[in-house]
Amino acid sequence: MEPLLPGRFIRRKRDGQELGDHEIRQWIKAYTEGTVADYQMAAFLMAVYFRGMSGAETFALVKAMMASGEVLTWPGYDLFKVDKHSTGGVGDKTSLILAPIVAAAGLAVPMMSGRGLGHTGGTLDKLESVPGFNTQIDLPEFDRLVRANRMGMIGQTTAICPADRKMYALRDVTGTVESLPLVCASIMSKKLAEGIDGLVLDVKYGNGAFFKEQERARELGKALKAIGTQYGKKVVVLLTDMNQPLGAFAGNALEIFECHEILKGATRPGVRGQDLYADTRALSLELAAQMLHLGRPDLKIEACRAECARLLESGEALKHFELMLSSQSGRLSELPRAPHAHVVTADRAGYVQGFDTERIGYINVALGAGRLKVADVIDPVAGLEFHAKTGDRIEAGEPLVTVHGRDLQRLRDVATDLRAAIRIGDTTPPTTPLILATL
Amino acid sequence: MEPLLPGRFIRRKRDGQELGDHEIRQWIKAYTEGTVADYQMAAFLMAVYFRGMSGAETFALVKAMMASGEVLTWPGYDLFKVDKHSTGGVGDKTSLILAPIVAAAGLAVPMMSGRGLGHTGGTLDKLESVPGFNTQIDLPEFDRLVRANRMGMIGQTTAICPADRKMYALRDVTGTVESLPLVCASIMSKKLAEGIDGLVLDVKYGNGAFFKEQERARELGKALKAIGTQYGKKVVVLLTDMNQPLGAFAGNALEIFECHEILKGATRPGVRGQDLYADTRALSLELAAQMLHLGRPDLKIEACRAECARLLESGEALKHFELMLSSQSGRLSELPRAPHAHVVTADRAGYVQGFDTERIGYINVALGAGRLKVADVIDPVAGLEFHAKTGDRIEAGEPLVTVHGRDLQRLRDVATDLRAAIRIGDTTPPTTPLILATL
Repeated sequence: MEPLLPGRFIRRKRDGQELGDHEIRQWIKAYTEGTVADYQMAAFLMAVYFRGMSGAETFALVKAMMASGEVLTWPGYDLFKVDKHSTGGVGDKTSLILAPIVAAAGLAVPMMSGRGLGHTGGTLDKLESVPGFNTQIDLPEFDRLVRANRMGMIGQTTAICPADRKMYALRDVTGTVESLPLVCASIMSKKLAEGIDGLVLDVKYGNGAFFKEQERARELGKALKAIGTQYGKKVVVLLTDMNQPLGAFAGNALEIFECHEILKGATRPGVRGQDLYADTRALSLELAAQMLHLGRPDLKIEACRAECARLLESGEALKHFELMLSSQSGRLSELPRAPHAHVVTADRAGYVQGFDTERIGYINVALGAGRLKVADVIDPVAGLEFHAKTGDRIEAGEPLVTVHGRDLQRLRDVATDLRAAIRIGDTTPPTTPLILATL
Repeated sequence: MEPLLPGRFIRRKRDGQELGDHEIRQWIKAYTEGTVADYQMAAFLMAVYFRGMSGAETFALVKAMMASGEVLTWPGYDLFKVDKHSTGGVGDKTSLILAPIVAAAGLAVPMMSGRGLGHTGGTLDKLESVPGFNTQIDLPEFDRLVRANRMGMIGQTTAICPADRKMYALRDVTGTVESLPLVCASIMSKKLAEGIDGLVLDVKYGNGAFFKEQERARELGKALKAIGTQYGKKVVVLLTDMNQPLGAFAGNALEIFECHEILKGATRPGVRGQDLYADTRALSLELAAQMLHLGRPDLKIEACRAECARLLESGEALKHFELMLSSQSGRLSELPRAPHAHVVTADRAGYVQGFDTERIGYINVALGAGRLKVADVIDPVAGLEFHAKTGDRIEAGEPLVTVHGRDLQRLRDVATDLRAAIRIGDTTPPTTPLILATL
């Protein structure tokens, strides 16, 4: 077998030649070990940005990245193991609701989550707003937890996909994040390393999503599904709307609160009495039903939907949620609340036309709810509470958003920005479906 | 002024946006100082490979790279200062002939040269085959030498264009060498840092050149000329043939020998009595005449040609050559010769159809005449001697190439490769002009 010549490998991709499975594996191995330098990987990633990757190349990259670290196996544990991955959004908290539902339904949910970066939140940050909750659990303990509770929620350990960890950090500082094959490989290498049997992908589109255009999101969804299917996994993709924040809250402890409330059966009335939890609940239930359907192909999807709704309403999902938190030392009763809140009111009457969701995400980051750099520290209590959603009628002076946090002046300072990010107009806007398509 | 955000800067180029003069300067400064990392520059260089650069961007890059180090000025030294740059080839030794001619004609030639890399040779390596010759001279001493002798030939010191030094090394290992704006910026930043008034560019095309196609070479020539002209320099570009090695010899001490012979007025008969020095002499004289014409616009180009020919024939150029060598401690009388020579004969009769010049260059490198890596050590006596050129008649068994070196077995081993790189056929091949065009 020829030795890998980094310069030649980079030029082959640059010139649009098809890379082979073996050389991609050599390349990722050499990069993980440090014999291929960051500057060579950076040049390669930019060449991939321009040239793309074929399906075969992308699949080889996924396998090579997965093989750079440990891959979980579940010897003697025969339950169907299923996970969900979302491409990220604002207020996107469905994992915390669907995982307990699916565990209650009898499947196993071994979930490894990431931190938020940019305008989107991360499940790991949300979980860590629960006092005492431990996300840094090693793989043997994770195995034990999942077998005991049918679910566990941890952060990616350094043992999983070290190549992805290095590549992701590099992409972030070299302008090579927005590449379909690189996005696919990053997502799928980590998820496949969990040793799961099935995966539901929530691919977001809209002004708060990673890929704004429906068509790009659809393309991503198809590519992700192709990789998972080729790897022998059962995969379903939902294209869902991220043109407004999901649910009533965006912010770490606030989102835990929302999930807990939904699992307890609560609703949250907005300015016209509408339930602000409706979209979070509906999307969580649909994703849970799709997960259950992957593991229980003997049941029709309608039966899976009914079963998930029953597990939510009966409180069985709530029990699994509380069990998961306490098993990982979380004290939900001590969930912190912000000392201050500032209500931003509507400055005119009308209908909410829509949200500039990415801008709202960045406002939330500036309040301390997210991070721009990996080293930034999160304030768990910071966040936003929405009182109306797209299409809702609102009168001048009615509450539009409540800003939660520690520093009242800072809360007041974002009011103008928030008003600019939520458009109010005279007519009802066209409605868009929460779930656009299932692939 | 906004601070430079490296990720944003890279993405702007990636997305095809026009970069400004100021941000390019900030970028190069930050890279030279080390606050922009190699991996960020590598991603940027690959984005430039795909997106190219506008004329304004390329010019800004040249200025920024030049400004990364010292720029020579020549206070009180009023002679017209002129240099020549070649894009590189095999047996390309004209600098050593034209510089003494132009100095003899009364202009100053402050020449900073590079080392060979890849299949092409470098003037610096050739000079260093002269025992004692010192190319590592600091800038004040270089200034003194040029004022004393109207010429000096040194290597690039670390004080000149440090950004180019870093970028060139990085391009070499990241697959980003073959980019027109990057090639232009590398060449012109170094040449303009010499503080010259005029520049003659020998842009090679053909199978031994950096850019093989005439059209690409013409494009490069035009771009180089545009930059020099915009910088207020007088520039002329010659497109010249590199479809066969230039002259009789390729190899460091062998090329010094050829130059010395030509300056002494010698010819070198090939198998049919043809002068194997003819092309080296003709190209050197034309480049010298063009250089003289830049500094003496009062003379017609024909008068410049006549003057250069006279300075060569009269031995005045030879005196300047010997003075330059001795002023830099070179002992030409001790020029080393290889202990062994192996004659490769023609295995059939016919006409030389042409040379695979790049392959011949790499054979020469393998013999020790060049380097593949910067750290490779050159054997000054290794090299090739050609007995026939393209279009020449040759009989079976007549000498085709003589291989010079220290290890007889190694010399014999390359015979097959050499025969394969020089095609002999039944008909006379179409002739191509040595000098295709003057831009």
